[in-house]
Amino acid sequence: MSELVRFGVSLEDSLLIKFDRLIKKRGYATRSEALRDLIRQELVKNEWEEDQEVAGTITFIYDHHRRGLSSQLTDLQHGHQDTIISTQHIHLDHHNCLEIVAVKGKASEVQELADALRSVKGVRHGALSMTSTGKEIA
Amino acid sequence: MSELVRFGVSLEDSLLIKFDRLIKKRGYATRSEALRDLIRQELVKNEWEEDQEVAGTITFIYDHHRRGLSSQLTDLQHGHQDTIISTQHIHLDHHNCLEIVAVKGKASEVQELADALRSVKGVRHGALSMTSTGKEIA
Amino acid sequence: MSELVRFGVSLEDSLLIKFDRLIKKRGYATRSEALRDLIRQELVKNEWEEDQEVAGTITFIYDHHRRGLSSQLTDLQHGHQDTIISTQHIHLDHHNCLEIVAVKGKASEVQELADALRSVKGVRHGALSMTSTGKEIA
Amino acid sequence: MSELVRFGVSLEDSLLIKFDRLIKKRGYATRSEALRDLIRQELVKNEWEEDQEVAGTITFIYDHHRRGLSSQLTDLQHGHQDTIISTQHIHLDHHNCLEIVAVKGKASEVQELADALRSVKGVRHGALSMTSTGKEIA
Repeated sequence: MSELVRFGVSLEDSLLIKFDRLIKKRGYATRSEALRDLIRQELVKNEWEEDQEVAGTITFIYDHHRRGLSSQLTDLQHGHQDTIISTQHIHLDHHNCLEIVAVKGKASEVQELADALRSVKGVRHGALSMTSTGKEIA
Repeated sequence: MSELVRFGVSLEDSLLIKFDRLIKKRGYATRSEALRDLIRQELVKNEWEEDQEVAGTITFIYDHHRRGLSSQLTDLQHGHQDTIISTQHIHLDHHNCLEIVAVKGKASEVQELADALRSVKGVRHGALSMTSTGKEIA
Repeated sequence: MSELVRFGVSLEDSLLIKFDRLIKKRGYATRSEALRDLIRQELVKNEWEEDQEVAGTITFIYDHHRRGLSSQLTDLQHGHQDTIISTQHIHLDHHNCLEIVAVKGKASEVQELADALRSVKGVRHGALSMTSTGKEIA
Repeated sequence: MSELVRFGVSLEDSLLIKFDRLIKKRGYATRSEALRDLIRQELVKNEWEEDQEVAGTITFIYDHHRRGLSSQLTDLQHGHQDTIISTQHIHLDHHNCLEIVAVKGKASEVQELADALRSVKGVRHGALSMTSTGKEIA
């Protein structure tokens, strides 16, 4: 279990005033919490840049009336079982399905899977959400 | 049901060669499909800029051992029932949980909810994935 | 003139180790410097979100052989004199010009000007670089 | 010199209506122009992903009163002569300078130079603008 350590930071007072205003607006209770989040954001960015093991979600939209599309998407996902944790399916309206694929794996493999899903004919839009497995930001 | 229409596009031949190379690399079968996806990307970007009704996912990571955190997150989500469609919870390892919230609502409300979840103490990282309800890109 | 103030930050020791590794990789001499930069990044992001007075550059590429294009771009720029500080012109090769417009103004006006320049026929690509007037991050 | 070629694109009529609305809002005269720009955007994104030769600008802000900073920045830039085309210096106010470095080189080298300039003590904010040498999008 990791312990809290304390260290000192030097900052221009004028900059600190602006930072305090921003963290209040964003709803943080303390400076330490806000700084911790900024640090984690940078670490997560770095995980993706260095092609480390990451986690994320691939979210895409498609029309389930399109013949054969659902099974094509399922096939594609089965070919990436090592990367995919789970898939959630949401019926947005009569036509549109939102499918959310939770993924964990090397950043480049996750990116590749996202590209593959996005380029399937009938998938209307896809977005990749980049986060962390949590190990490197604890 | 929408029908396919056909129209002509003029392009420099040198540009077309490079585009054909790119769509092959990305795995598209035809130019029309690739262009359709580019158009939809722009439309989705525009939905978010104009604060229209959008869909998306908020993905975040937290340590479920932190006392009171789960119930705090649940409370926060219940306060946004109109925006949240469903929540999926994934156990990444002994400590880290990945929680994926599927959302639908005004872009600004979705953004606000993402900020609120991200700034909860104990949430280690959060990412917002921006897609569409599908209505405006069909 | 702003003075340096010092305050304490609490961080998990495991997170601090990873942060120290990252700031070394990025070339920072001290934690304070790295944190100052993270804070400023957030403040600049916030300036653009809140449509404050910002600074930036609009960089675009065009073919100067295209008849009438240069004067059309100059005309457009003259219509935005209040936002434009200066324009630098670089001859990339026989055909391609890189034009860099330094801008200062409300974020929304800068964005509008970037869109206008980008959509001129013959402009091949445009990119907007978002930074600050410096006042709010000192 | 490249010639214009014409080819047909199939699109759902409902999607075409929305696209026409968007290109009107963005100020394009024809669909071909708007599509050409979408295609070029993708090609430029691809140039950066594949670490090809690219062009761009590095824009940063610093306080010129800081002793030794200007010469440190000049030294750093001289060490990257092959990548830097030119530098433009703008006096934003009594304290803040905006420096705009036009660059051309491998994407990874440009990125590295941007990181190096950003992490210099006294540089308050830096932004990298990614565009193309124009050769691959003509």
